[in-house]
Amino acid sequence: MTHYFPEVAEPVRYEGRDTTNPLAFRYYNADQIVAGKTMRDHLRFAICYWHTFQYRGSDPFGEATFLRPWFDNTNSLAEAENRQDAAFEFFQKMGVPYYTFHDRDIAPEGANFGESCKNLEHIVQRAKRKQEESGIKLLWGTANLFSNRRYTHGAGTNPDAHVYAYAAAQAKHAIAATHELGGENYVFWGGREGYETILNTDMKREQENFANFLHMAVAYAKEIGFSGQFLIEPKPMEPTKHQYDVDSATVLNFLRAYDLFDHFKINHEPNHSTLAGHATEHDLTVAASAGKLGSIDANRGDPQNGWDTDQFPTDIHANVMMMLVVLKHGGLGSGGLNFDAKPRRSSVDLVDMFYAHIGGMDSMARALLTAQKIIDDGILSRIIEDRYASYSSGIGAKISKGESNFAELEQYVLEHGEPNVVSGRQEMIENLINSYL
Amino acid sequence: MTHYFPEVAEPVRYEGRDTTNPLAFRYYNADQIVAGKTMRDHLRFAICYWHTFQYRGSDPFGEATFLRPWFDNTNSLAEAENRQDAAFEFFQKMGVPYYTFHDRDIAPEGANFGESCKNLEHIVQRAKRKQEESGIKLLWGTANLFSNRRYTHGAGTNPDAHVYAYAAAQAKHAIAATHELGGENYVFWGGREGYETILNTDMKREQENFANFLHMAVAYAKEIGFSGQFLIEPKPMEPTKHQYDVDSATVLNFLRAYDLFDHFKINHEPNHSTLAGHATEHDLTVAASAGKLGSIDANRGDPQNGWDTDQFPTDIHANVMMMLVVLKHGGLGSGGLNFDAKPRRSSVDLVDMFYAHIGGMDSMARALLTAQKIIDDGILSRIIEDRYASYSSGIGAKISKGESNFAELEQYVLEHGEPNVVSGRQEMIENLINSYL
Amino acid sequence: MTHYFPEVAEPVRYEGRDTTNPLAFRYYNADQIVAGKTMRDHLRFAICYWHTFQYRGSDPFGEATFLRPWFDNTNSLAEAENRQDAAFEFFQKMGVPYYTFHDRDIAPEGANFGESCKNLEHIVQRAKRKQEESGIKLLWGTANLFSNRRYTHGAGTNPDAHVYAYAAAQAKHAIAATHELGGENYVFWGGREGYETILNTDMKREQENFANFLHMAVAYAKEIGFSGQFLIEPKPMEPTKHQYDVDSATVLNFLRAYDLFDHFKINHEPNHSTLAGHATEHDLTVAASAGKLGSIDANRGDPQNGWDTDQFPTDIHANVMMMLVVLKHGGLGSGGLNFDAKPRRSSVDLVDMFYAHIGGMDSMARALLTAQKIIDDGILSRIIEDRYASYSSGIGAKISKGESNFAELEQYVLEHGEPNVVSGRQEMIENLINSYL
Amino acid sequence: MTHYFPEVAEPVRYEGRDTTNPLAFRYYNADQIVAGKTMRDHLRFAICYWHTFQYRGSDPFGEATFLRPWFDNTNSLAEAENRQDAAFEFFQKMGVPYYTFHDRDIAPEGANFGESCKNLEHIVQRAKRKQEESGIKLLWGTANLFSNRRYTHGAGTNPDAHVYAYAAAQAKHAIAATHELGGENYVFWGGREGYETILNTDMKREQENFANFLHMAVAYAKEIGFSGQFLIEPKPMEPTKHQYDVDSATVLNFLRAYDLFDHFKINHEPNHSTLAGHATEHDLTVAASAGKLGSIDANRGDPQNGWDTDQFPTDIHANVMMMLVVLKHGGLGSGGLNFDAKPRRSSVDLVDMFYAHIGGMDSMARALLTAQKIIDDGILSRIIEDRYASYSSGIGAKISKGESNFAELEQYVLEHGEPNVVSGRQEMIENLINSYL
Repeated sequence: MTHYFPEVAEPVRYEGRDTTNPLAFRYYNADQIVAGKTMRDHLRFAICYWHTFQYRGSDPFGEATFLRPWFDNTNSLAEAENRQDAAFEFFQKMGVPYYTFHDRDIAPEGANFGESCKNLEHIVQRAKRKQEESGIKLLWGTANLFSNRRYTHGAGTNPDAHVYAYAAAQAKHAIAATHELGGENYVFWGGREGYETILNTDMKREQENFANFLHMAVAYAKEIGFSGQFLIEPKPMEPTKHQYDVDSATVLNFLRAYDLFDHFKINHEPNHSTLAGHATEHDLTVAASAGKLGSIDANRGDPQNGWDTDQFPTDIHANVMMMLVVLKHGGLGSGGLNFDAKPRRSSVDLVDMFYAHIGGMDSMARALLTAQKIIDDGILSRIIEDRYASYSSGIGAKISKGESNFAELEQYVLEHGEPNVVSGRQEMIENLINSYL
Repeated sequence: MTHYFPEVAEPVRYEGRDTTNPLAFRYYNADQIVAGKTMRDHLRFAICYWHTFQYRGSDPFGEATFLRPWFDNTNSLAEAENRQDAAFEFFQKMGVPYYTFHDRDIAPEGANFGESCKNLEHIVQRAKRKQEESGIKLLWGTANLFSNRRYTHGAGTNPDAHVYAYAAAQAKHAIAATHELGGENYVFWGGREGYETILNTDMKREQENFANFLHMAVAYAKEIGFSGQFLIEPKPMEPTKHQYDVDSATVLNFLRAYDLFDHFKINHEPNHSTLAGHATEHDLTVAASAGKLGSIDANRGDPQNGWDTDQFPTDIHANVMMMLVVLKHGGLGSGGLNFDAKPRRSSVDLVDMFYAHIGGMDSMARALLTAQKIIDDGILSRIIEDRYASYSSGIGAKISKGESNFAELEQYVLEHGEPNVVSGRQEMIENLINSYL
Repeated sequence: MTHYFPEVAEPVRYEGRDTTNPLAFRYYNADQIVAGKTMRDHLRFAICYWHTFQYRGSDPFGEATFLRPWFDNTNSLAEAENRQDAAFEFFQKMGVPYYTFHDRDIAPEGANFGESCKNLEHIVQRAKRKQEESGIKLLWGTANLFSNRRYTHGAGTNPDAHVYAYAAAQAKHAIAATHELGGENYVFWGGREGYETILNTDMKREQENFANFLHMAVAYAKEIGFSGQFLIEPKPMEPTKHQYDVDSATVLNFLRAYDLFDHFKINHEPNHSTLAGHATEHDLTVAASAGKLGSIDANRGDPQNGWDTDQFPTDIHANVMMMLVVLKHGGLGSGGLNFDAKPRRSSVDLVDMFYAHIGGMDSMARALLTAQKIIDDGILSRIIEDRYASYSSGIGAKISKGESNFAELEQYVLEHGEPNVVSGRQEMIENLINSYL
Repeated sequence: MTHYFPEVAEPVRYEGRDTTNPLAFRYYNADQIVAGKTMRDHLRFAICYWHTFQYRGSDPFGEATFLRPWFDNTNSLAEAENRQDAAFEFFQKMGVPYYTFHDRDIAPEGANFGESCKNLEHIVQRAKRKQEESGIKLLWGTANLFSNRRYTHGAGTNPDAHVYAYAAAQAKHAIAATHELGGENYVFWGGREGYETILNTDMKREQENFANFLHMAVAYAKEIGFSGQFLIEPKPMEPTKHQYDVDSATVLNFLRAYDLFDHFKINHEPNHSTLAGHATEHDLTVAASAGKLGSIDANRGDPQNGWDTDQFPTDIHANVMMMLVVLKHGGLGSGGLNFDAKPRRSSVDLVDMFYAHIGGMDSMARALLTAQKIIDDGILSRIIEDRYASYSSGIGAKISKGESNFAELEQYVLEHGEPNVVSGRQEMIENLINSYL
């Protein structure tokens, strides 16, 4: 096996919080037990193929800056094999249990659809062997239905049935590949499912077509016995001016409207929720409250820049807020924390890939420890219990059960008069959280 | 009858587009027939009580600037009567068929709930007479469940059942008042239904309680025979950091989740949709596509300021985009165009109220004429038809009917190969729209 | 002396980071020496009069929620005295060395200008005694030239010379009051110095007039012997659609253009810089690099809400970034950290004022300790030194001194060929900062 | 000459506003006299090389969609010649008098700097001939100092003097090329002059170096006799997290601070000013008020998307606001209206290039006619004159001349009492503007 990362000869180790070694973990200690489960099993880290092995540092104003040794500019199967070797070496050196991919990340398009399928199948078989050798598993797979020119106007929402058919065929093989590799989930991110101008768009028709697309996916999964979880990933805009899967609530509405609710959960991405104008913990809670928290594409955005910056999730406070939601709702289930994040274009070295992932993993591990401590101490949960205590009995209990009515509530007011206004104690609670950081 | 607006002695008249009289309509000609219906019946203009008769020009950094003659700073019933006289004089001089109010706009809170109800009832009876005399009708009523201190933490989502009961009692009377006045709709805008920090908030519990609140409203309306349409007005933020009714899709999701879908439609506000990151025509289309376009709070926001500026809707292009959606979906039904808009704080004179409403009415009337012309010419609709033509027959028709599957679509691709990419013609279409302006 | 805050009987004490007492400091230990100076002298905390003693919890959609015992709704001098007693009790219980005010915060407007001046003078004399008794000092004073109706169209930029004159007269007395009370700075925040629509605005004329206003202020200060620092506080918008003092660079440009550069520094506010689209540390560095970092109105905004939320500065990472700039540029000079922040409207109790200020003080103190540690360790500064090392000698040194030219540099390139691209190491550095938090 | 655009056989003609030909001008009539000058001379349209001949429709999530016949994927001089032929054919068919380019748009980089210079020189000589043949002139040239990997950390602000030297050498040749081609201006857009994180950045040092860079450019221009206008183009962010040339005021501050004020003007771009949080007319007025309105990169952004969308300027209202500023300040001088705009990625056909430019040219021409009409009628200017009338005599005149002082103004207030508050008449004025559209 070629060594693509000689600078980091051994897997990254946990050295504790006092280490000054920038290539060690300070918090992530995979086997450490937190609330009865290892950190590994809580966090279920995954490294993504696209940013980490396909992205070369280009941006809308500049060319590639990452000169990765696994690229030879042939876009060939041989190149894909080299990339795969590099990927598995990196997964192992980072010590993550999972990875994720789009079909076109791992294998190149061929001269026609049949050839593309053969390329994919070849790489999938090779991935299967590498997974077995390394113990690395597939968190989820997906199809790239947005980069190729044919998807300019969308895939499952394309105005042209021919393109729609192409997307369906491609999704079929991506689901099959995910199944073949034991993927625990399959993700739909609709990068071009949206529009540039409503003047040329029939939104309702496009959404109906997309619903049919997803029903076909459900049927196909059943047919082949794929029991992984289907996930939809919301994003409000970019690349299109307006994308259909804006945020968790929008996706849930779509799922309910088209009888798809039972088959899908949400793949939440923090940077997407902030683009939608929501604090991450809000959108995550919307999904979780509906029993639909599927997985997290762990990253962060820039609070001043209005596009997807896909930075590593190193904001400790933000991560604690996220882990509080995750722990409160019983963990990530079949999902995980997938680093849909990339080093800055100016972090041109291979070693920067390590720094970046260490930062993300350590920050999330630290957040797990902190969130669990907050939960264990119980102060925060008691505050919330107290705040809603009036709904536990009397008129409040009747309200909660949907057993009251306006006349009864008016009578209550006439008898009890003006309610007291109680402080929400926001500043005290924010100080409390800070005391754990 | 006291004359509050002596500067505008007669009702504002239509003088045609060449008039230079700033106190005349250039486009709004109420009785003019457009596509078989009068402008009056298409546009169903309403003037709102809160901005126009309650707002005094204060902002977070400054005191009132509007010295309205109907205020005497007593917050008494007598003051409310004067305000009502001014309002009906203005409605008549502007020539609008409708008005809208919150309960506390038209009548002051009393020393206790019972007294508040009496105040409301007194003013409602007086309004009834004034409606009869003037022919002005009530488009919709609503309850102000956000300004009073008691609603600091919300109304139908308050953590305290006592406050919840108060909100229910108040809503009961506001619905009754709306019914008494022949209101054609009743609106719920959840100004405090949301939260400041999720750290002290149980979102799911609050939303369940709110769903129960709305079910009680439905039951109460049935009980009293109110058959007006219930509307929910989305807004993503402000005053609270995060409001539950973010946008149309979020509201639809809520209605579906809690079995309320059949009883509510959307009261769309352009400034709220842009705060949510959507073009107005997008959020309007989301509502309309679900059969839920109820009414419009016609205004506009500032594209650079991140709060609700509630300006009069004078952007001609934006209005045409709105009217295209409205006309395409069969008009406003029992809804209307309610000017939820206020003159700038620096437009301190009474006559500025006229300029402001004339601007709004004229711009919407112009947009109606333009949108109808675009529809009549049929160029735009033919472009859309052509664009989706592939779904009318063959494989496309099977997709549309939900009768295809992944295997069949793959087979289609294997036979037909790569699809062509057709231009979306956005620039040509945008030029086309400009040619109508 | 009346006790307004019986719930907090004694001044808030430092108890160390393990305390669970929410009414104690965990980090702020006033006399603790950090890099040769006490924390008190580093941080120079000030409490502001407006949010803390004048703001009652109203917002654009709701009435007051704070029922402060020092208000009797008379807007009288007696009320102002009570407010002053409460303020000094609170300053002392919080243990801050400084406070700040607008003229109209401390004393009410009278029936005419002369009476307003008398009210101010009365309260100023009383403040003088209270300052002496308590040892509390005035960090800065300012004039409120934005709340009164007369300033609707601006103060020093008003289109009406009469209003301009009024603003000048008011500023004269506010400067005199600040001087009388030993204020160390005087601030100009131009809340209405801007415009709503450029259609009725002569921007250049308004800015020329404003420059003359500031020149008069400089002359007046010289005349009365006031040697405190004049500060301008940037803000890009709100309350006006567009404010002239957008950010540090805009203010510096104005000062340079109108020969005012030597007389003014910047009063930086984090929430204002984020509204302007800048990270706080950016705008602060712009000011500091020009030698113009004057003082800080310590607060934070909400990353998703587009208005001034004026929250207490409890984001530890953000505070460390700020303190790194402050320490690097030699500290705050005659400025300080003034809490231009308010408890949330829903934090209705008096004790919430304590929690809020404790959170702000502790977070800034913690940031001071962390930033000093980062500086002492020297890793970050060595990274920067190394990064720019090429400018220390050879062609780089010539460039730095402005002694090179295009021909010479071309020659250099022809000889040395293509430069290497070196990683910026952003992720590693971000991890490094996190290791200090 | 190869014909790249056979679909549009003849130059686009003016056919008047009633034409339904989408490939004709409805407003742009080059020889029509407006206020004593032809439309051609007022508008000075330029077509840019980068979007129109280099951009292939890729975005951060998708590959190229524009299959232009002048690309053969060789990045050779031959390809550059074909591109040049296509460009001049298009310029002529669109009937614009000017074009603009970056050095690397027109000629490819070679194997080393010397070869790149030779490539450039070859294409420049060819351009010279084509300019002579066609009569098309160069509005401005510039150097692309942001796309190449070497400029990852900036050009004139790079931490490495070697890269800085490279940028200087490249700028030298780009200025020489512009001079050779009779360019009327030369533009500096600092796409990478900014930073990703202030943690690794010495802002002051970088800005000093950049000032030296510009001084060298001034010296070089003098040396070779280039008398075109130097322009700086502001942008607040993108591609970097924070760019130094945020907006007009920021650039003016920089120019004043480093003694560059006399040598530079502003190249304004609407989409950049809205990204900076300003209405376009604001930032344009800031530049114009300082005598620094140099040229305009005519485009528009999307009001909901937070990145540079570079759409064609078809918003009629926005264009009128721009033209009002331009006309009021005496026109564009040596600048012009350069379409720094691109068809949407989904407008894949060559003919879409025509639709797009026709839309931009027609909308600006229509705006010119409208703005001139508004100016000729004089209503708007009289409103402004009246509004500031108090500064024409008495105390106002003294204020304007800087001859008053605080004591005198206080005396004025004591004598004249409270000023009246006059309405700003914003709604009436907005209606007035709409009546011209």
